[in-house]
Amino acid sequence: MNQLFEQLNPYLERNMAFEAAMTLFEWDLETLAPTAGLEYTSKVIGILSDEYFKNIVNDQVKTLVDQLKRENDLSDQERAVVKELSDRLEKLKAVPPEEYKEYASLKAKSTAVWAKARKDQDYAAFAPVLEKVIFYEKRFANYRSEKGKDLYNILLSDYEKDFDIKTLDRFFGELKTHIIPLLKTVTAKNDAIDDSFLYASYDIVKQREFARFLAEYVGFDFERGILAESAHPFTTNLHNRDVRITTNYHEKNLASAIFSVIHEVGHGIYEMGIADDITQTIVGTGASMGIHESQSRFFENLIGRSKAFWKPIYGKLVALFPTQLEKVSLDEFVKGINKVRPGLIRIEADELTYCLHIMVRYEMEKMIIDGNIDIRELPGLWNDKYEEYLGVRPQNDAEGILQDIHWSQGSFGYFPSYALGTAFASQIYHHMNQEVDLNKVMESGVLKPVIEYLRTNLHQYGKTKSARELLTAVTGEDFNPHYYIEYLKEKYIRIYDIKV
Amino acid sequence: MNQLFEQLNPYLERNMAFEAAMTLFEWDLETLAPTAGLEYTSKVIGILSDEYFKNIVNDQVKTLVDQLKRENDLSDQERAVVKELSDRLEKLKAVPPEEYKEYASLKAKSTAVWAKARKDQDYAAFAPVLEKVIFYEKRFANYRSEKGKDLYNILLSDYEKDFDIKTLDRFFGELKTHIIPLLKTVTAKNDAIDDSFLYASYDIVKQREFARFLAEYVGFDFERGILAESAHPFTTNLHNRDVRITTNYHEKNLASAIFSVIHEVGHGIYEMGIADDITQTIVGTGASMGIHESQSRFFENLIGRSKAFWKPIYGKLVALFPTQLEKVSLDEFVKGINKVRPGLIRIEADELTYCLHIMVRYEMEKMIIDGNIDIRELPGLWNDKYEEYLGVRPQNDAEGILQDIHWSQGSFGYFPSYALGTAFASQIYHHMNQEVDLNKVMESGVLKPVIEYLRTNLHQYGKTKSARELLTAVTGEDFNPHYYIEYLKEKYIRIYDIKV
Repeated sequence: MNQLFEQLNPYLERNMAFEAAMTLFEWDLETLAPTAGLEYTSKVIGILSDEYFKNIVNDQVKTLVDQLKRENDLSDQERAVVKELSDRLEKLKAVPPEEYKEYASLKAKSTAVWAKARKDQDYAAFAPVLEKVIFYEKRFANYRSEKGKDLYNILLSDYEKDFDIKTLDRFFGELKTHIIPLLKTVTAKNDAIDDSFLYASYDIVKQREFARFLAEYVGFDFERGILAESAHPFTTNLHNRDVRITTNYHEKNLASAIFSVIHEVGHGIYEMGIADDITQTIVGTGASMGIHESQSRFFENLIGRSKAFWKPIYGKLVALFPTQLEKVSLDEFVKGINKVRPGLIRIEADELTYCLHIMVRYEMEKMIIDGNIDIRELPGLWNDKYEEYLGVRPQNDAEGILQDIHWSQGSFGYFPSYALGTAFASQIYHHMNQEVDLNKVMESGVLKPVIEYLRTNLHQYGKTKSARELLTAVTGEDFNPHYYIEYLKEKYIRIYDIKV
Repeated sequence: MNQLFEQLNPYLERNMAFEAAMTLFEWDLETLAPTAGLEYTSKVIGILSDEYFKNIVNDQVKTLVDQLKRENDLSDQERAVVKELSDRLEKLKAVPPEEYKEYASLKAKSTAVWAKARKDQDYAAFAPVLEKVIFYEKRFANYRSEKGKDLYNILLSDYEKDFDIKTLDRFFGELKTHIIPLLKTVTAKNDAIDDSFLYASYDIVKQREFARFLAEYVGFDFERGILAESAHPFTTNLHNRDVRITTNYHEKNLASAIFSVIHEVGHGIYEMGIADDITQTIVGTGASMGIHESQSRFFENLIGRSKAFWKPIYGKLVALFPTQLEKVSLDEFVKGINKVRPGLIRIEADELTYCLHIMVRYEMEKMIIDGNIDIRELPGLWNDKYEEYLGVRPQNDAEGILQDIHWSQGSFGYFPSYALGTAFASQIYHHMNQEVDLNKVMESGVLKPVIEYLRTNLHQYGKTKSARELLTAVTGEDFNPHYYIEYLKEKYIRIYDIKV
């Protein structure tokens, strides 16, 4: 180890430990902590967060990082760690420690307030907390906005460095051009597919059993991970040997848990695949939000909604739910899970309308962060946009603006990565398919070659390579939304038997 | 707040946060963390433990504590905090930080090694870890043994300050004198009670349902706590609004989960009853291990094994398990759960033989810590003692020396508190019964007056009063084992219809 780097090591180890502790508290609050404990536990998290902050934002670390940035004798991994730490310091040092602590403490509570508001369909109960979260997000972005950039661009850069408002406006513009007409053609033929069987009654105990089977089948290693339940499905991890995913079961919706599980398993497999020598460092996690989402979407949609994937396992699902499924053929099932249903809930959206859900959030975030909008107007605005783009209008805020956890956690600028990640997934699939015959692998009932390909080419590197470097290394070209658009066109023209 | 005390506050707050984080990690490892994550997570815990150590063992804190001990202008609570911190520093400062960290890291792994060894009935797999744990326990005790005291006395004092080897030898001696003859009389009449119904087959899903009902019925507040499962039942808490208990269900043993739940609820109610203004301080927990155990034993035995307790709720249990219980009357059930069965497993012991289980451990601990015994001889020694005192011999180490979690966690000197606590419980019961008619309260089906009495007289104070102070305040006299012995005599003479 480089001698100068060695001096940084105690700070890095503490950083890792404080982060792991905060991750565990967050996991715990969202899955099983008793409700009345929130206030006192938030105090604990506030103090840990303060320690986390002070441990890296100080003169000793600043001096070491400045020296290390000029040091030639560093391994690739050490260099990546210094770069990542330097980026974080740039971001953190702009914020006064006291405000950072206040915000951390607020965020520890805000998710529970959101969860209750969603349950009660009561946006007004959430609005004051949301307003405070937005206040801090804007304030912190403002501290970092020395060059007079749009604040929203600063937030976007936290999740996907090379994709700013300009790029995203163009990306979403292209999707609009191609998808709106396709969606119209498809919805005109929508009666052709019957998916009513998905909304029969499905016993939750059996759904749990299938979810566990499915997670393991796709490649989630239960020696290194757990599957639990929470209001909104998510993935978190302490390191590559402790990866935690959640889902949420609905008795009257079979597809909801199935696809959220496959989705989170995609995230989980990524984190399980990070190399051992970096997993407990600050570069030991996914390269970017978009790359992370490319992995979850890859499994959820390109793998999980294909006929080849279901061929070996559909029988098992039918055996669990004979009354509901014995008259539904494999072909009918696969059509059913791909039916386009312009709906209200993002995480239950089909592939075709998915990016429209993101577009609503993207446009609203631009207004929230850089516009001048009254917090009380947001639900109405949300509902109007859904009506305009998707032709559906929420009847209450639980199925509208309160559906997602993200804003309660201060994740503004994060949603666009969902659309980008989905586009990355198609690009990766296209190139991977030239080396691994994906249909054949899926039909074989053993998905290991897929996991191995991704681990070798992508997962292991963590943040030691940037999103763009990884995408180029895996696919041989820079980001290209063409594959995503072509994939959607080919798929829906086929499924809906559309004459071109 | 006293100005000098205020300077200590940041250290105290960090102390609280690091302790809460370590508690959460321990909880998580014992309940749901994935098995393969242990090594990396132990590293995290090691670092947090190191931070915990450095935060209080340093010159600034030492100076402040020395000044505060001479300060007159402190509130009672501040004074209690300073005393507790001073006691901890005395203990910690004797140990070199590096060794403290090594040991914390070892302990994070050792419990899982124990759990696996127990599962595999493989003492040899646990022995090397146990040997290391003992090495650290003795080494650390040795650092603190300036006055040439027996090392075991030092370990005992960590759990129960005023009860040393001499006192305990006398206490156990008295129990031997009274209980061995009583046990002989009772076992001679043992066929008089049939408890075979307790070992029928009891569906675990229904046992879970009853356990939750029972926990709530006794007084566990599910807004402020959770009930989970682990290899060995335990209670832990982050503060008075986040209290966590576990149990362990056995299909062929109804009483096991029932009484472990009531026992842990007793611990849990104590922690839930600590006053708000001290819960997040270092005096915001139970006064001593013995006092804690007095609360769990109070509920498990004096309340939970009485006819009056079961009168309002036995019908519910029968309704859940009609096939197994409909022919068992309330009287037969109460006799069954009180049947004396000299057995191998401490946590399933009846009240009469319980202290003999503790005596085995007490005698072995004296030899392990102050004697010169080969670690490989322990299982044989354990088995011999069981044969001698209880007339039963373990057939494997899972039902022998591997049954308890405690030694894997380095808790030597802790077991005697179990016997003391049980004796405290009888003393408390006797005096409480003069103010609250306990039989009447139990028969009413509402246990609130019991909880309120304990909260008012005992729970709220946490560690601001010593075990002995509390016992004297509640019962009006110093520790007196007479109540325990009388209680056992009266109970078993009655149940077994013994002619005196």
